[in-house]
Amino acid sequence: MKKSTSLLLTLFTFAFMIGQEHSHTGASAMTYPNIEGYVTLKTDLHMHSVFSDGNVWPTIRVQEALREDLDAISLTEHLEYQPHSEDIPHPDRNRAFDLALAEAAEHELLIVPGSEITRSAPVGHSNAIFITDANTLMESEAEKAFTAAKKQGAFVFWNHPAWYRQSPTGNPILSDFQKKRIANGELHGIEVINSMDYAEESLALALEQNLTIMGTSDVHGLIDWDYTEKGNHRPITLVFAKDKTLESLKEALFAGRTVAVYNDLLVGKAEYLKPLLEQCIKVNAVAYEMDTLVLRVELENVSSSDLLFENAMSYTFYSKPPIFTIAAGQTETLQIKTLEKVSNIDLKLKALGAFTAPKEQPIVEWNIVVE
Amino acid sequence: MKKSTSLLLTLFTFAFMIGQEHSHTGASAMTYPNIEGYVTLKTDLHMHSVFSDGNVWPTIRVQEALREDLDAISLTEHLEYQPHSEDIPHPDRNRAFDLALAEAAEHELLIVPGSEITRSAPVGHSNAIFITDANTLMESEAEKAFTAAKKQGAFVFWNHPAWYRQSPTGNPILSDFQKKRIANGELHGIEVINSMDYAEESLALALEQNLTIMGTSDVHGLIDWDYTEKGNHRPITLVFAKDKTLESLKEALFAGRTVAVYNDLLVGKAEYLKPLLEQCIKVNAVAYEMDTLVLRVELENVSSSDLLFENAMSYTFYSKPPIFTIAAGQTETLQIKTLEKVSNIDLKLKALGAFTAPKEQPIVEWNIVVE
Amino acid sequence: MKKSTSLLLTLFTFAFMIGQEHSHTGASAMTYPNIEGYVTLKTDLHMHSVFSDGNVWPTIRVQEALREDLDAISLTEHLEYQPHSEDIPHPDRNRAFDLALAEAAEHELLIVPGSEITRSAPVGHSNAIFITDANTLMESEAEKAFTAAKKQGAFVFWNHPAWYRQSPTGNPILSDFQKKRIANGELHGIEVINSMDYAEESLALALEQNLTIMGTSDVHGLIDWDYTEKGNHRPITLVFAKDKTLESLKEALFAGRTVAVYNDLLVGKAEYLKPLLEQCIKVNAVAYEMDTLVLRVELENVSSSDLLFENAMSYTFYSKPPIFTIAAGQTETLQIKTLEKVSNIDLKLKALGAFTAPKEQPIVEWNIVVE
Amino acid sequence: MKKSTSLLLTLFTFAFMIGQEHSHTGASAMTYPNIEGYVTLKTDLHMHSVFSDGNVWPTIRVQEALREDLDAISLTEHLEYQPHSEDIPHPDRNRAFDLALAEAAEHELLIVPGSEITRSAPVGHSNAIFITDANTLMESEAEKAFTAAKKQGAFVFWNHPAWYRQSPTGNPILSDFQKKRIANGELHGIEVINSMDYAEESLALALEQNLTIMGTSDVHGLIDWDYTEKGNHRPITLVFAKDKTLESLKEALFAGRTVAVYNDLLVGKAEYLKPLLEQCIKVNAVAYEMDTLVLRVELENVSSSDLLFENAMSYTFYSKPPIFTIAAGQTETLQIKTLEKVSNIDLKLKALGAFTAPKEQPIVEWNIVVE
Repeated sequence: MKKSTSLLLTLFTFAFMIGQEHSHTGASAMTYPNIEGYVTLKTDLHMHSVFSDGNVWPTIRVQEALREDLDAISLTEHLEYQPHSEDIPHPDRNRAFDLALAEAAEHELLIVPGSEITRSAPVGHSNAIFITDANTLMESEAEKAFTAAKKQGAFVFWNHPAWYRQSPTGNPILSDFQKKRIANGELHGIEVINSMDYAEESLALALEQNLTIMGTSDVHGLIDWDYTEKGNHRPITLVFAKDKTLESLKEALFAGRTVAVYNDLLVGKAEYLKPLLEQCIKVNAVAYEMDTLVLRVELENVSSSDLLFENAMSYTFYSKPPIFTIAAGQTETLQIKTLEKVSNIDLKLKALGAFTAPKEQPIVEWNIVVE
Repeated sequence: MKKSTSLLLTLFTFAFMIGQEHSHTGASAMTYPNIEGYVTLKTDLHMHSVFSDGNVWPTIRVQEALREDLDAISLTEHLEYQPHSEDIPHPDRNRAFDLALAEAAEHELLIVPGSEITRSAPVGHSNAIFITDANTLMESEAEKAFTAAKKQGAFVFWNHPAWYRQSPTGNPILSDFQKKRIANGELHGIEVINSMDYAEESLALALEQNLTIMGTSDVHGLIDWDYTEKGNHRPITLVFAKDKTLESLKEALFAGRTVAVYNDLLVGKAEYLKPLLEQCIKVNAVAYEMDTLVLRVELENVSSSDLLFENAMSYTFYSKPPIFTIAAGQTETLQIKTLEKVSNIDLKLKALGAFTAPKEQPIVEWNIVVE
Repeated sequence: MKKSTSLLLTLFTFAFMIGQEHSHTGASAMTYPNIEGYVTLKTDLHMHSVFSDGNVWPTIRVQEALREDLDAISLTEHLEYQPHSEDIPHPDRNRAFDLALAEAAEHELLIVPGSEITRSAPVGHSNAIFITDANTLMESEAEKAFTAAKKQGAFVFWNHPAWYRQSPTGNPILSDFQKKRIANGELHGIEVINSMDYAEESLALALEQNLTIMGTSDVHGLIDWDYTEKGNHRPITLVFAKDKTLESLKEALFAGRTVAVYNDLLVGKAEYLKPLLEQCIKVNAVAYEMDTLVLRVELENVSSSDLLFENAMSYTFYSKPPIFTIAAGQTETLQIKTLEKVSNIDLKLKALGAFTAPKEQPIVEWNIVVE
Repeated sequence: MKKSTSLLLTLFTFAFMIGQEHSHTGASAMTYPNIEGYVTLKTDLHMHSVFSDGNVWPTIRVQEALREDLDAISLTEHLEYQPHSEDIPHPDRNRAFDLALAEAAEHELLIVPGSEITRSAPVGHSNAIFITDANTLMESEAEKAFTAAKKQGAFVFWNHPAWYRQSPTGNPILSDFQKKRIANGELHGIEVINSMDYAEESLALALEQNLTIMGTSDVHGLIDWDYTEKGNHRPITLVFAKDKTLESLKEALFAGRTVAVYNDLLVGKAEYLKPLLEQCIKVNAVAYEMDTLVLRVELENVSSSDLLFENAMSYTFYSKPPIFTIAAGQTETLQIKTLEKVSNIDLKLKALGAFTAPKEQPIVEWNIVVE
C-alpha cells in the first residue's frame, strides 16, 4: 500500500534511535592483550539468526558483538535447515551476511561471510567461512558442498564434534568423511569449545590432525540470556593476526594461530597460549619487604579471564597458598621467600585453567628485575 | 533439498533445549496484588517483532514476557510499515500472533491478537487488539481501518499521542480524526506511558474523553537492553479483570479498569489506583514501643514498584521524615507519635508516585487495630 | 614487667601496619559542595568510645571518620556515666580527646574537644564542645556544669530532645531548665536528627528558639554495623565555615550556619539549605531535542544524598513524572516542554527530602541559558 | 559522683538496644558440615581487645563472632604488652575473658580463657588457652610462663612462626626453646595460617613435630575492615569435637583433630581434611542424559569455602574443563563420559585448595549409585 515519505522517515527515526543506544561497547566488553608480532582479534565465528534457526534479526548479532567489543563475527546460517522458511523464503543464502554488514557499517567490527553445512552423523555440522557465495554451497551431497567451499578459498571447521546428540559417548569420532576432507585440504579447524561444552578429546584431535583450535558461542537465542546474565562471557576464538583485516584474520586461521577461550578456560597450542598468558600479566611493582628476604611482586591481570595459577618455582610464598587466582582486571600481590637477596628472579607459574593438550597446562615465565 | 528426519529431529532438539531454559519466571518477574472483586493482570499490549520493524522472532517476545511473569501480551505489528518485507513477504498479517501463540502453548500467558494502524500526524498510530483478522484492517484510508476494527469488536487505543516526532510540543493534539473515532466508538484507550515517556497531558485527555489509561513498552529491540539491564521493568498496564481469560481482559479494558505502571510511577483512575495501593501494603505488626506513646507499625510492600509516601495524618513520625519510600518487596517500620494510647488508627499516606490526574496523588487509608 | 625495646618495636610495627591500612578515604566517603562564601564541613559531633559507654578505642572513631571523609568529629563521652570505670578509672576526662588527636595527627581531620553532660529528664543530655577542660564540667548540679561550659566558651547543644526513653510521647519538652539555659546563653544548638531519628518538633523548637540545627550519629558501637552495611551513611551536620579550622567551625556553629543530613533527608534554615541544594546540582548540557520544542537538560547530583524533586514550574516534562530522584553522584535528563523556543529558563524544583521547617520544603531555582 | 537509678536504667536500655541488634547471625555467617563421629566447631582462638593492643572492647569480639556464627573464641591478650595500660591498669589478666563471657551469656558461643605469651625471637609469641588463671602466667622468664600454663592444663600453640618481623626469611625457625617446650609437653599446636598469611613450612613443621594445625585471625582492629568488606571470612580453625563443650573442644585440640581454613584454603591432616571435604559436597541428582552415555551428576557445596577441584578419574567431562570450582553454597553439574552405562561410579576429585602437606592435595572420593 501507499505510504507517504514523511511517515516512513518518522518511523525510521524512531527505530533508529532505539537501535542506536546499543551501538557502543558495554559493561560486558572483553579485552585480551596483543602478543609479539600479532594483534589479538576476539572472534565468534559460529552463530545463527532468523535466517536459519536463530531467533533474532542479524542486526542484533552485530549489536551483541559490539557490546562485548568483539573484532569479528560470522553469521553461519544452516544452509539446509531453515525452520523459518515458510516466513522467510530466503532464496539468497548470503542475506544474513548482507544485513549484518550494513548494520556494522559505522563500526570496526569485521563481518565474515559464512554458512553452516549441516548433516547427520557421521558427517555432522561444519562451518565454511570466508566464502564468496553461500548459495553455491547448497549441494545435496556433503562432499560437493565441501568442494564448493574449497573452491571459494573458505576456511572450514568442524562444529561441536563431541555433541552427544550426534555422538552419544560425548566423544568426537573421526569418520572417513572427515579424514578425507582433511586429506583434501577441505577441513581446517575444529571446535574444542562450543557453547558451554569443552571436550578434551576434540583438543587431542586438533593436535593430532593439526586442525585450528576454535571456540564459538553457536548462539541461537540471546547472548544475554545464555551467557551474560549468568556471569559468563560467550566462548570466543582469539586469533593472532598480522593486522585487523579480513585477509589477515583468514591467513591466521589457516595458519592455526588461535586460542579458544570460555571465561577462565583457555585452550590453544603452546606457541600461542604461552605468549598470550605472558602478556595477560603485567608486573607492576617489585621490592623487598622492609628488613626481610621476602620479595613483594604485584601482578596485574589485564585480560578478561580470571587466571588460576600454581607456583612452579622452588621458592614458596609468604602470604598466599601455592594455588591462587588473579581475577580479570585485578592486581594480586605475591610475597616470594627468596631466602637471600636476589637482583632478579624467574617467576614461574603454571596456568591451571590453560590447556595446550588434554591435562597439559603451560608453565609461564616472567623475568623480574629487583630494583 | 532433501533432508533426513533424524537430522531434523536432532537439530530441533538442540534448538529446543536452548530455548527451554528461558521458559521460566526469572529474577525480573513482576508481581502486583489483586484488588477486591478482580484479579490484577500484568499486560504489555504494544510490541513489535521482525514481522514489522522489531528485531526478534515472535518467540522471544513470549520468552521475555514469561521472564517478567506477565499475564498477557499483544504483538502489534505495523500493518503498513514492513521494513523487513523484502525478506519476510508476510502476506498474512496474523502470522506474528500465530507464532507467539504456539510458543506460549504450554504456559499461562495470554496472547492477544493485535495490529498497529500507522499513519502520520494528525492520525498518528493506534493499536487495535482483540481483532479477529489483521488482514482486513489494511485499508489505505485510516477511517476504514478503524471501521474494520470496530466490526471485529476490537479494543483500540491511541499510541504515544505526545510523541515529539509527531507533535513537536510533546503534547497530544486531539484532532478531528480522533474526536470522530471516539464519537463513533472506534477509539477506547490512550497510552499515557509509552516506553520511557509519561505525558500528564495524555492523562488529562484520558480523563476528559473517558479513555482507558494504558502503559506499554512498544519494544522493538530487547527488553533486557531497553529496560532490565538499566534496573527498570518495562511499562505495563495492570488490568483488573473478573478472571484471567481473554474475554475478561477485553471486558475490563473496555470498562476502563486499568492502571499504567512504569517502575515507581502508577497512573490510573482513583477508583482502581487507590484499592491497588491499599493492597500493595500489608500491615504486619502493630504495637506501642514499651513504656511510650509511640506506635510501631510495620508495612510491607508486596508489589514490584517502590512506593513513595508522604504522611497525610496530623500525627508525626518518631524516626522517619514525613516523606519516605517502601522499596518493592521490602518492609519499613513507622513509629507514629499518637500522643495518647489509641486502640485503632487510620493510617493515611499520600502516594507521591501515583497519579489519578495531572499532579493529583491519592491519599490511601488503612484502618489499623492496636492489639 | 620488663620488656626489651626490640620486642616493643616489633610489636608496635605489627599493630601500626594493621591500623595504617584504614587511614584512607574509603568507598563510603561522603562529599557535599561548598556554598558561596563558605566551605562545607562534614561533621559528627556526638559519639562515644570506651571512655564512656562506647565499645571501641578512640582511634577507631578517627579511622571511621577518615573512611567517610569527615572534616571534624568530637568524642563526647558522658562525664557522669562511665560503665567501664572499673577497668578504665580515667581520672582525666580529656583522655579520649587526647588519644583521638594523636591518631589524627597525620590527617586533615579536626578533633573537637567535647563532653556529654548527662542527666534524667527534664534536664536530659547535652553536649558541650570546644571546651578547654572536660574535668571542670563534672558538677553534681547540672546548672553548674553549663556555667562551667560557658566559661570555657563552649558551644552546647541539646541531644535527642525527642528521645522516647526521656519523653514517652516522642516529642521534645522545653522545660524551665532549658529555657533558662537558652536565656543565659548556655545552650546554642539542638539535635533534630540523632542516630536514625528525626523529630519535626525538634526542628520547630530550633526555629522558635533560634538554636543551631544539628544531626549526629551518637554512635556507641561500630559505624559499619549501625549504618554502612545497611546502605546508610551516618547522620552528620554540614557546617558552613569561613575555612577549615577549629575556630571557623566554632564560629559557624554559634552563627547557626548548618544543615543536618541523614542520607536523603536534609534539614536546615532556608538561607543555608537552598544554596546548598543549588550547588548540589550541576547543569551539564542544555539543548532542544532536534526539530521539537522539548528542551533537554542534564542535571548532575554532585552530593552524597539522593535528591528527590518535584517539578515546581508551569512547564511539564516529556519523559519523567513530575516527582523524580537524582541519585547521589548520578546524572538525570529532564525534557521540558517549553511550548515555544526560549533562550533561557528558570528551572524550579521543590526538594521533597529537604526541610526548612516542619513539612516545609524549599523550591530551588537554577537559571539556565539555552545556547 | 552520684547518679539516680532511673538515669542509669535509661542509659543502659539505650546501650542495650543498640548492642542487641547485632546479637544475631549475619550475612557473613560461616557453615561447615560435621564429619562422622564429630561435630565441627568453628573457632578463632587468637584475637585482641583493648585489654592488650586491640582497639575494641571485648564485647565487640563476641558480637563479631556471633555474626560469623563461630562456635568458640578466645581473647588472647598479650600478658606482657599492654600499650593501653596507662588507661587500663588492668591488674587482673582474666578481665577480657570475664567481659566476653558476660556478653556471650545468652548465646551458644563458647568463650575459651586464654592469654598470649609474648617475647622476641627466638621465643616468639605463643597462646595458652584453657588456662585457669592468666595472672599466674606473668613470669619474666618465658620458660616459667610455659611451665605455669602446663600446670593449668593449658593447650599452647605457637603464633605466626613464619612472621617476617621475627624471621626475616619468612620461614619458621624451630629453636632450642621450642624443641624443649615440645619435649616437655608444653607446646601442642602451631599456626599455619595467621591473619592473611599461610606458610607451607609451618605446615611441614606441624607434621614433623606432630603439632595441632591452627588458623586464626589475630585480629586487633575490626573483622569487617580486615576481612568482611574485602569479601573474605576471617581465618578459623575447624575443630572436630565429640560435642560442643569446652571440654570436648580442649580434648580435640590436644588430639590434633583440626583443619585450618582461610576462605578457599583448607589445611589439615589427611584423616580430618578428607572426611571434611567429603561432607562438604552433597550429591543431589544422578542420571544419564537422555539417549547418551553421559552421566549427569549434581554436586552441592554445603560449606562456606569455594572448593576448587581437579578431575582425578580416567573418565573425562562433557561440559566442564578438568579443573573447576564449586562456589560456597552453590551447585554445579558434572557431565561424566562413562563410555558405557554404569550402575555406580567412584567420583574422584583432587581438592586443589586443600593441603595435607606442603604441595600435597587430597583426592576425595564419593561412591555414586546410578538409579
